[in-house]
Amino acid sequence: MATKQKRFILPEDEIPKYWYNIQADMVNKPMPLLNPKTKQPLTAEDLFPIFSKEASRQELNTTDAWIEIPEEVRELYKYYRSTPLVRAYGLEKALGTPAHIYFKNESVSPIGSHKINSALPQVYYCKQEGVTNVTTETGAGQWGAALSYAAKVFGIEAAVYQVKVSYEQKPYRKSIMQTFGAQVTPSPSMSTRAGKDIITRDPNNQGSLGTAISEAVELALTTPNCKYTLGSVLSHVSLHQTVIGLEAEKQMDMAGEYPDIVIGCFGGGSNFGGIAFPFMRHNILDGKKTRFIAAEPASCPKLTRGKFQYDFGDEAGYTPLFPMFTLGHNFQPANIHAGGLRYHGAGSIVSQLLKDKMMEAVDIQQLESFDAGCLFAKAEGIIPAPESCHAIAAAIAEANKCKESGEEKVILFNLSGHGLIDMASYDQYLAGNLMNYDLKDEDIQKNLDEIKDFL
Amino acid sequence: MATKQKRFILPEDEIPKYWYNIQADMVNKPMPLLNPKTKQPLTAEDLFPIFSKEASRQELNTTDAWIEIPEEVRELYKYYRSTPLVRAYGLEKALGTPAHIYFKNESVSPIGSHKINSALPQVYYCKQEGVTNVTTETGAGQWGAALSYAAKVFGIEAAVYQVKVSYEQKPYRKSIMQTFGAQVTPSPSMSTRAGKDIITRDPNNQGSLGTAISEAVELALTTPNCKYTLGSVLSHVSLHQTVIGLEAEKQMDMAGEYPDIVIGCFGGGSNFGGIAFPFMRHNILDGKKTRFIAAEPASCPKLTRGKFQYDFGDEAGYTPLFPMFTLGHNFQPANIHAGGLRYHGAGSIVSQLLKDKMMEAVDIQQLESFDAGCLFAKAEGIIPAPESCHAIAAAIAEANKCKESGEEKVILFNLSGHGLIDMASYDQYLAGNLMNYDLKDEDIQKNLDEIKDFL
Repeated sequence: MATKQKRFILPEDEIPKYWYNIQADMVNKPMPLLNPKTKQPLTAEDLFPIFSKEASRQELNTTDAWIEIPEEVRELYKYYRSTPLVRAYGLEKALGTPAHIYFKNESVSPIGSHKINSALPQVYYCKQEGVTNVTTETGAGQWGAALSYAAKVFGIEAAVYQVKVSYEQKPYRKSIMQTFGAQVTPSPSMSTRAGKDIITRDPNNQGSLGTAISEAVELALTTPNCKYTLGSVLSHVSLHQTVIGLEAEKQMDMAGEYPDIVIGCFGGGSNFGGIAFPFMRHNILDGKKTRFIAAEPASCPKLTRGKFQYDFGDEAGYTPLFPMFTLGHNFQPANIHAGGLRYHGAGSIVSQLLKDKMMEAVDIQQLESFDAGCLFAKAEGIIPAPESCHAIAAAIAEANKCKESGEEKVILFNLSGHGLIDMASYDQYLAGNLMNYDLKDEDIQKNLDEIKDFL
Repeated sequence: MATKQKRFILPEDEIPKYWYNIQADMVNKPMPLLNPKTKQPLTAEDLFPIFSKEASRQELNTTDAWIEIPEEVRELYKYYRSTPLVRAYGLEKALGTPAHIYFKNESVSPIGSHKINSALPQVYYCKQEGVTNVTTETGAGQWGAALSYAAKVFGIEAAVYQVKVSYEQKPYRKSIMQTFGAQVTPSPSMSTRAGKDIITRDPNNQGSLGTAISEAVELALTTPNCKYTLGSVLSHVSLHQTVIGLEAEKQMDMAGEYPDIVIGCFGGGSNFGGIAFPFMRHNILDGKKTRFIAAEPASCPKLTRGKFQYDFGDEAGYTPLFPMFTLGHNFQPANIHAGGLRYHGAGSIVSQLLKDKMMEAVDIQQLESFDAGCLFAKAEGIIPAPESCHAIAAAIAEANKCKESGEEKVILFNLSGHGLIDMASYDQYLAGNLMNYDLKDEDIQKNLDEIKDFL
């Protein structure tokens, strides 16, 4: 029986004091965000009406590789960080692979996912700047729960627009947000112009992240002393999430290994960037050859089948134009159970990195993701979030290749969250009621054609 | 801003190698378990038909203070142990108390509660002894989920009888068990004589832990190569849970403190004993004066209002007679949302300790428990299990006394599990739909009168 160490946890004084801003080291920087009216590059000041000033500055910072984590945020990180790095001996055994599989377990944060890592600094900056209300969107509810908790910590009011289909399918996440004192509204709602427009066109609209973002941004723009916060896609969100990879780097060192492959599931890019960027730094600067794999759902394949172009981040077109791999901001993804991955575009950093072949992407079908999640649950005892199941599926695919080739590769993936609030989805899977979704090329193209004249 | 350490985690080589068996140090040993037919004290051999041989021996071991944790179990503990000891600065601040509040966070185990600590060794011993099937009962489902996972780890089949009201109210826990591959049956069921008898008498019976135990024991007794396992009450279960308190002792030492008060919620006694017994050892042997408080629901008040006498552990009377504080094995507790605390009796060790005034007990009303749970959630970001809310309520009461007196007492409580599968209960609470339950003395007495002739 193996008696090697299984879990690696950092002492509190080893928790990172800086986030890593990969924009400073990228050979090709991301293209600028544009003002949709003037088509001119945005300045941080242009973002001030929407975001906190500090988040706005971080968003456009392409020069400073290291950005200090505020002491107050670090003190709050210490309640749950470092999260464990775990050697998945159980999964290795179940697969019969010679690969060494590690996962970074973000599911043991207070909120149950990585989202809290960015919610805390985003709300902290708002508080520092005298903001009294924050608003946001949420899909499955992981981000909304994190934001609600962070708002409570800093004594700020939170209003969350939750995608209607998730609001109804996953009522428990709504309850969590309400337990933290947040106001939760299903989106589309009648409380915003963006929501009303959609409901008028389509009274049975089940919502999307793009629509919920429109509603939350509108609320921020029309409410005094209220700022908008976002759970993924943006560069400053990925920046905050690099605490995951920076810890993992030290923890892999404790394990005496370095990853050959780093994997994250992919919605907008923040958990993927969070675990990948600190290791990618060594590919850029030190000649390491680690592969980075973003695992996205086959039903929402912006990285594998989308187009790189400028597009809006939301459905109504309130946001700046982002240079992104996109399926079109008007894309309506299928109602897969990985609600957090149902987003039409990829963040501008990841989009540039994919364009530059610094990383790869794979698409995972819904049934394959749950197959992987159940295998992992039985092997490791943790029920993974449906989103995280995509990363697990990609990790299993790589581990199986190692089995064929006999290679002892080191695979690291991010377990971005647990699936305890998503058991209804597992029920559906176990009952054989879930399906895969096949998108036709012509449907993707038709959708993209509608937005091709942005530039 | 405080920069003191918040979380204390042990290095892997500091994880306990022995469980602590308080029976060896007790001044007055627990009275013996009795054969209900002969009224003679049981031997370990008498228990072999029901439990694994090793669990049976541990159950009756009153001489060895330290019992080795099998290496295979310790290796599995290492996937999640040590659990963090956390200084609850957020809760202290919310209360404005000078008390130092710590909690042991068992909610970050793979299954989300402390139950896994005993599920692993119980199934391990079965596996070692060639058992192929295990069976058990579960209320809210915490224990059933832990047992299902442990069975999967050791490649044994698991059959779980879940109290019907919980099976229907908390379908997600059933899904978790099924995800791990267990067979889950709502109890009372038609699959056992005990179940059939109850359904025949009362077709709408919603089940109780006592009934589910009867069904599981019957299945074990009538199935070849099948053993029964139990999640609380028994002495060997509390023994396994002492890993909690043994770790906490080392972790409190890391924090430079020693608890004045140790608190656990109370169903059958295993999480309470788990955190309390290692510290109580120092009261017994070293003259420490720590107070130990068991927090039970006011609707199921065996410690505060029950009677110390011999009683069965189950509804049908299949088990031995236990010396216990009991409300009567025929007691039907109200449908409170802390399903894991709905049990009529207390384990024989705890019962003796309470009789000997080595510990105290308090009863907590349902609304008070959820008040405390929501306050804790907002302050610490963790949604506690309804069961754990009782410990939190007791800790808050003690912290508030410190506020009045100005004393800087050190309070330690066990956060036995998270409440993420119990959000429907929080919904009910937030909507104002939960109620308290008042038991009349005469109703308790009437119930006890029915069973007074056991000895």
